[in-house]
Amino acid sequence: MRLFEQELQVLNVGLPAFADAITAAGGKATQIDWAPPAGGDRAAGQQLARLINDPRIEEANRAAFAVYLAAQPVLEGIAPAREAVPGMDGRILLHAGPPVAWERMCGPMQGAVVGAILFEGWAADREAARRLAASGEVAFAPCHHHGAVGPMAGVIAPSMPVWIVRDAAGDRRCFSNLNEGLGKVLRFGANGPEVIARLRWMAGPLRRVMAATLRAAGGIELKPLMAQALHMGDEVHNRNAAATSLLLRRLLAPMLRSGADHGELAEVADFIATNDHFFLNLSMAACKTMLDAARAVPGSTMVTAMARNGVDFGIQLSGTGDRWFTAPAPVVDGLFFPGYSTADAAPDLGDSAITETAGVGGFAMAAAPAIVNFVGGTPDDAIANTEAMTHITLGRNNGFTLPAMHFAGTPAGIDARKVVDRGLLPVINTGIAHRDAGIGQIGAGITHAPLDCFVQAVLALAATLPEE
Amino acid sequence: MRLFEQELQVLNVGLPAFADAITAAGGKATQIDWAPPAGGDRAAGQQLARLINDPRIEEANRAAFAVYLAAQPVLEGIAPAREAVPGMDGRILLHAGPPVAWERMCGPMQGAVVGAILFEGWAADREAARRLAASGEVAFAPCHHHGAVGPMAGVIAPSMPVWIVRDAAGDRRCFSNLNEGLGKVLRFGANGPEVIARLRWMAGPLRRVMAATLRAAGGIELKPLMAQALHMGDEVHNRNAAATSLLLRRLLAPMLRSGADHGELAEVADFIATNDHFFLNLSMAACKTMLDAARAVPGSTMVTAMARNGVDFGIQLSGTGDRWFTAPAPVVDGLFFPGYSTADAAPDLGDSAITETAGVGGFAMAAAPAIVNFVGGTPDDAIANTEAMTHITLGRNNGFTLPAMHFAGTPAGIDARKVVDRGLLPVINTGIAHRDAGIGQIGAGITHAPLDCFVQAVLALAATLPEE
Repeated sequence: MRLFEQELQVLNVGLPAFADAITAAGGKATQIDWAPPAGGDRAAGQQLARLINDPRIEEANRAAFAVYLAAQPVLEGIAPAREAVPGMDGRILLHAGPPVAWERMCGPMQGAVVGAILFEGWAADREAARRLAASGEVAFAPCHHHGAVGPMAGVIAPSMPVWIVRDAAGDRRCFSNLNEGLGKVLRFGANGPEVIARLRWMAGPLRRVMAATLRAAGGIELKPLMAQALHMGDEVHNRNAAATSLLLRRLLAPMLRSGADHGELAEVADFIATNDHFFLNLSMAACKTMLDAARAVPGSTMVTAMARNGVDFGIQLSGTGDRWFTAPAPVVDGLFFPGYSTADAAPDLGDSAITETAGVGGFAMAAAPAIVNFVGGTPDDAIANTEAMTHITLGRNNGFTLPAMHFAGTPAGIDARKVVDRGLLPVINTGIAHRDAGIGQIGAGITHAPLDCFVQAVLALAATLPEE
Repeated sequence: MRLFEQELQVLNVGLPAFADAITAAGGKATQIDWAPPAGGDRAAGQQLARLINDPRIEEANRAAFAVYLAAQPVLEGIAPAREAVPGMDGRILLHAGPPVAWERMCGPMQGAVVGAILFEGWAADREAARRLAASGEVAFAPCHHHGAVGPMAGVIAPSMPVWIVRDAAGDRRCFSNLNEGLGKVLRFGANGPEVIARLRWMAGPLRRVMAATLRAAGGIELKPLMAQALHMGDEVHNRNAAATSLLLRRLLAPMLRSGADHGELAEVADFIATNDHFFLNLSMAACKTMLDAARAVPGSTMVTAMARNGVDFGIQLSGTGDRWFTAPAPVVDGLFFPGYSTADAAPDLGDSAITETAGVGGFAMAAAPAIVNFVGGTPDDAIANTEAMTHITLGRNNGFTLPAMHFAGTPAGIDARKVVDRGLLPVINTGIAHRDAGIGQIGAGITHAPLDCFVQAVLALAATLPEE
């Protein structure tokens, strides 16, 4: 009964207000971060408790994680989307993130749609393109619904070239568009003549040279390239400097032996060599390929997609197939280019969070201490972010090792249960687009997937599972 | 007077035997590493004390370090050594390290000399080549005496192509030979027909293509490439995977626009793309350029070269010009390829320690956690090695920053006084050659420059300085 005669050492769990009061009164209190599961949602917490103790889910997750690990994405070619991507033969445009109608699209996505319509020649000018987009005569669909992914606005039109990535361990194919570089580019909503001209060049000389090169090269395994890049300071989402260089190095001899026109070859070489992000779209297609392998395992709480359309953030779970669970897309806290701030930023945008879903990007930040120059923070933060992700994932991908963490594999296979239970949200490295079309990138930073997506996903998964 | 009634806490400085005895008796002792300066050499210690307190040396070192920092090595061309390197017009062969006569050369260096003689056509077979080498009719000189550097045996013959690197901040030129790749190569003493054939191809198609490419490219600044590679897991001595990729990426468009024969272009592209070490010789030439800028500053104790010929390890100081201070070359402790051990190893060999002298290589190990797969140790050791080198250097090179150390510059400008005072030896990442000619690389590891070189250097420098 002499407790109050001693010096008090208080541990405070949860709301910091209690600890603050003790500290203010001159006492000592150590604050322990904690929040109730599911953000305090009682119904969700109860379903969660059921799922956490269900051996059927453990088994399903083991199976889903194993096929994700076994996938072997191989770059096998390039072709116009119309020819390569199922269901792209018509007036259809794909976009990033979960489904969104024209009226609800964010500025950069509307800008990209207008640009894509001009590129296809479906309208003569921007006004006509906007009218056409609003008329219902152009179909819109998420890239993800067609086995594809695209960064930022992620708009893919039928005549645009796409990378074709095949899973050598299965037989599915995934796709992504090609990276345009920085500055005024379609993916940030720019649609001026120089943007359209570049897209035409990409659909012509770039596609031709790369098609001939890839024929000469045979298939190119993407996981070894990514793994090597992770040893060279890339996290293969916001930093692809090493991966782009390694790809170019790998393609060089086949390029020279491809029989491609030498003037075009030199243009293509310049285009790739001056764009550190060139590999990003291949990284995304590779990640999509690995995660598609893990789709549709009944009972699995493994996340197979995280994607944003600039309005909604959506996720998909293996055990609930193609269903989206969405919440408002957050605004990204990051480093802004001079003259811009959060007020100018479009909410989180793009399919590129497929990289984090696959265990790279923000999950592999420990590989890329130099990324903090771009997204903010310190090299220690980079390691801490990777470390934190081990608490919400199913395991480690030992195909992707992290030198700074004694060559541990990247944490991979997000378990929606663990996210909801721990309130620890998947970290995403990302670029930031201006909210208005056409201005382009205004910064880069770190964001987190919204908890509510995971809560909904867990409830939906629970509903698929009969009571024992 | 109650000392012995308390529990004893002993700090033991120097010889651990005293601490061991206390520990063995059940007491507690903390061992502090310390050794007397100059390994206990009283005369050297006295000279050292004089030098450490001399403001003329501080001033000289500031001047030498400043010109080292200011140097701007630019790759400007490639040409046969006979045309580019002063004093190479005749029967002369350059070799790594300090001067060494034919009879004293280690196995790999003799093998390389024989190969170079065959390559030049000065003898018809190996026996004749050995006789010629022993006859005195071929002049031997260190690469360093001709502004050049070469890895391992470092043999440069007049018809071999050399990189020409110019200091844009001064006007001096430095040179290195070209990297042959791994396996059976001249620099490890191999001299069979395939080695000679490769050297001929390098002197022909490779030189022609690179000459045309460099004409099309204009000069290529090497420090930015090295700095970028340090952010990509290279330390630009034993790991050059990123730098080689970045170089190739930089050269690609000029290569395609050079007008070079396309068959030869493809061969050259293959040769470079499949050799992670291709950049090493450029890194070495760049480091030599930076350090030559700092040569011959009277009174400076800054080390301007560390080089090994497989028998002797030699260093040069700025304040003592071209004089060598040598000690027996150590055997490298490292990771051996299967079937080999220390017993098979040639002592430390090559001019590549010029990278450490310039603040990269082992001094920048923190940049290259993945290097420990190659030279042994853990990523923490890599950081500790870089950290340790801050105690024996004049400052940091902020042109070369280390992400894992919060973007601190690499420790650079070895101060011979500090090495002798602290008994802390410069760390060197290196390959290990078999002691017999022609077997090649048998491992890689970490070695240290011998203390005795620095003791001699400090004594010689002291002798140049009049008493105040």
